[in-house]
Amino acid sequence: MSRKILIVDDLATNRIILKVKLNAACHETLQAVDGSSALRLAREEQPKLILLDMVLPDISGIEVCRKLRADPATWHIPVVIITASTDRESRLRALEAGADEFLTKPLNEVILLARIRSLLRAHETESELRMRSETWGELDLAEGETVFSMPGHVGLIAAEPAVAMNWRNALAPHLKERISILSPTTALSDRPQGGVPDIYLVAANLGAQGSGLRLVADLRSRVQSRHAAIALVLPEAEPEAAAMALDVGANDLLTLPLDPQETALRVTLHVRRKRRADQLRRSVHKGLRMAITDPLTGLYNRRYAIAHMDRIANKARETGRRFAVMLLDLDRFKSVNDTYGHVAGDAVLETVASRLRDNLRPADLVARIGGEEFLVALPEATLGTARLAAERLCRVIGDHPIPLPEGRGAVTVTISVGLALGPDLAPETRDPAATARDTLARADAALMAAKTEGRNQVTISSAA
Amino acid sequence: MSRKILIVDDLATNRIILKVKLNAACHETLQAVDGSSALRLAREEQPKLILLDMVLPDISGIEVCRKLRADPATWHIPVVIITASTDRESRLRALEAGADEFLTKPLNEVILLARIRSLLRAHETESELRMRSETWGELDLAEGETVFSMPGHVGLIAAEPAVAMNWRNALAPHLKERISILSPTTALSDRPQGGVPDIYLVAANLGAQGSGLRLVADLRSRVQSRHAAIALVLPEAEPEAAAMALDVGANDLLTLPLDPQETALRVTLHVRRKRRADQLRRSVHKGLRMAITDPLTGLYNRRYAIAHMDRIANKARETGRRFAVMLLDLDRFKSVNDTYGHVAGDAVLETVASRLRDNLRPADLVARIGGEEFLVALPEATLGTARLAAERLCRVIGDHPIPLPEGRGAVTVTISVGLALGPDLAPETRDPAATARDTLARADAALMAAKTEGRNQVTISSAA
Repeated sequence: MSRKILIVDDLATNRIILKVKLNAACHETLQAVDGSSALRLAREEQPKLILLDMVLPDISGIEVCRKLRADPATWHIPVVIITASTDRESRLRALEAGADEFLTKPLNEVILLARIRSLLRAHETESELRMRSETWGELDLAEGETVFSMPGHVGLIAAEPAVAMNWRNALAPHLKERISILSPTTALSDRPQGGVPDIYLVAANLGAQGSGLRLVADLRSRVQSRHAAIALVLPEAEPEAAAMALDVGANDLLTLPLDPQETALRVTLHVRRKRRADQLRRSVHKGLRMAITDPLTGLYNRRYAIAHMDRIANKARETGRRFAVMLLDLDRFKSVNDTYGHVAGDAVLETVASRLRDNLRPADLVARIGGEEFLVALPEATLGTARLAAERLCRVIGDHPIPLPEGRGAVTVTISVGLALGPDLAPETRDPAATARDTLARADAALMAAKTEGRNQVTISSAA
Repeated sequence: MSRKILIVDDLATNRIILKVKLNAACHETLQAVDGSSALRLAREEQPKLILLDMVLPDISGIEVCRKLRADPATWHIPVVIITASTDRESRLRALEAGADEFLTKPLNEVILLARIRSLLRAHETESELRMRSETWGELDLAEGETVFSMPGHVGLIAAEPAVAMNWRNALAPHLKERISILSPTTALSDRPQGGVPDIYLVAANLGAQGSGLRLVADLRSRVQSRHAAIALVLPEAEPEAAAMALDVGANDLLTLPLDPQETALRVTLHVRRKRRADQLRRSVHKGLRMAITDPLTGLYNRRYAIAHMDRIANKARETGRRFAVMLLDLDRFKSVNDTYGHVAGDAVLETVASRLRDNLRPADLVARIGGEEFLVALPEATLGTARLAAERLCRVIGDHPIPLPEGRGAVTVTISVGLALGPDLAPETRDPAATARDTLARADAALMAAKTEGRNQVTISSAA
């Protein structure tokens, strides 16, 4: 990303005026004189924002905006359309084309710069999320379409419910979104009736219930609404108040009387953007889950198991209660794969995994740490309870044949288990990680012994 | 987390006054009458914030604060100490004990609520990060200590450099942090000389250079400073301006004349908190990297390779240029493990991985998708270029013996390669993912053929 702002205008004077204003606010700029060079620069230079004149010599600003939005290389760049015209039609067309804002010349500098700050702030947050979720792959597109086609939820907050009801009546014909009327109090409650809105429309003047600006700040600080979109509804264009609202965290400004069609377009845009950010957050979360799980069985993987063993040892030192570790290995598993094929082998591993999980306590850890090798860690265990658990696991695996896929019958597999009880750790023990490693090594030696002594059995490490 | 605010005060009237104020601002509350019940409630209920009276019947508020900070279950909860005393010593002790803020009775409601909003906002951001990084394991503690012991960087911004220089002279004796003097312009530049500060101290009045409040908003919107701490320096206690500054994104407020010791304590606190958040962000990033890489070789893993294949097929449809896939398998690798042991086997896999990586283009994908099986995807390939690449890989592996660890000599391994060229995709092709799967299956069949026909060779799938 070039971190520059792209100015698109065919008139040199206009470009220079904007450049001076932006440079004074410490933004670097790029310039384009027509639509096609704007599109090329947007792709190549990845500006952080585009200020786009509506009237250009080759293609219209609207068309440029539409093309920017359709191109995966540029769709995320914020676009502000600037025009001398004040007509409503152009404004609606600009928003329909995907413009983030529409400003009329002569530009109010305070508003322009506050808009830029607000768009950049939102854009950076989204970029950061996108960068993270792209580390591990694409969005789950199937989920994406379901999410985007679900209607959103709009919350209206005005000084009087009657005012909000008027807004609702005006907006409803233009929106597929569900619309709720809220008071400042219900808006701030932890679990608002009807769910948390995707976007709040907040009147700047809430009468006896305080200032809309403060409510915006309050919504931004609450866990349930901090990622929602917020538009402040101002009685008239007041540049200073408007700028402050954007800086406090409003995503958009609307002026009374509300233009229903324009408001609906803006609301739709914000709902879509908020959904995208929610999806990116989920995708980061999913990526992080993947880092610690085994894809076949859904159990934790080796990496997680080793880290978690350290925590269990640490906890044992704090509580003074010992922990136990088992290493489990399927006996002669290769012959299952060789006889029935890999698909059957995978099905056996899945069944073994779910039997292990179902026969342990929630606090116990079960992980698949190798092809047919599993680790079980039991916090707060005694040798007695751990041995009983190990013997139970042997039985639940070995006593019941495992059905094979495609009706190919069933196969009986057995496991060998090596069990070791962690040492009695004094609180001053320096290195619980070393303790975890030692205990694991003892469990491994016990597993070797179980294999040598005929398999399908539990062997307990004698040293402790 | 209970999402409640814990009020700790031994006087019922004080608790009721606070409870009424907080309820009016839609915060639910919990109450404690002494230090020990405060500590218990903090652990059990996990309040989102604690308002703590300085004087309590059992242990002092300072002591409660210290204990909260020392306990892993409560150290992250924001604490505001409230007191009737205005003496400087208590204030310093409260900050030293880890309090986030210190407010004097009678409480100014505007300031109290703005502080709460600001602390909750910061706290929620940190909680979200922490939750994510904990999904996959603990922080890298070794890294943590290095990071926290490095001195931070403080940027001072006042109307005149002479004023900032006075601040620096006053603060320097109390801080190990490096201190820079910046103008609003240098503070906003992309790559400020001397690096980006961890914390900015910004004068509310910047004279001819505008308002400090606006600069705070501007710093919050810039990619380099958006995660930094910011304290606004006010000429006097002005509740409305102070509240606005917090809502716009300042983390702290300081009043002139600066108390050097208090300022230093606050700066240190903010630097530490910012470092912790930076570390959490890195740890999320690292977790996401782990989700897509093979820990032994550092190559991409199977999960990533399959997702990436879909993208390559999609791209091929867009550009009209074909892609190729190779599946590579080490010949008779089991004998290496059996003869030389797993450690030697792992070393061989690592060397093979780095030879593959070094002999492909940056845009090509190399992944380890099984024990000794690798996948290579070549975007924009022809059968000719892909075959040359495959033959080159065969040679760079088979022609040079691989040294074994611990001076145990070297071993020569060969690979078999199955190669398939993706089909010529029409732009209207519905499902690039299916194309990717088909091509992979053809490469797999070709690999089987290579194995059957004597290994150490490239076999090309005939169908395309």
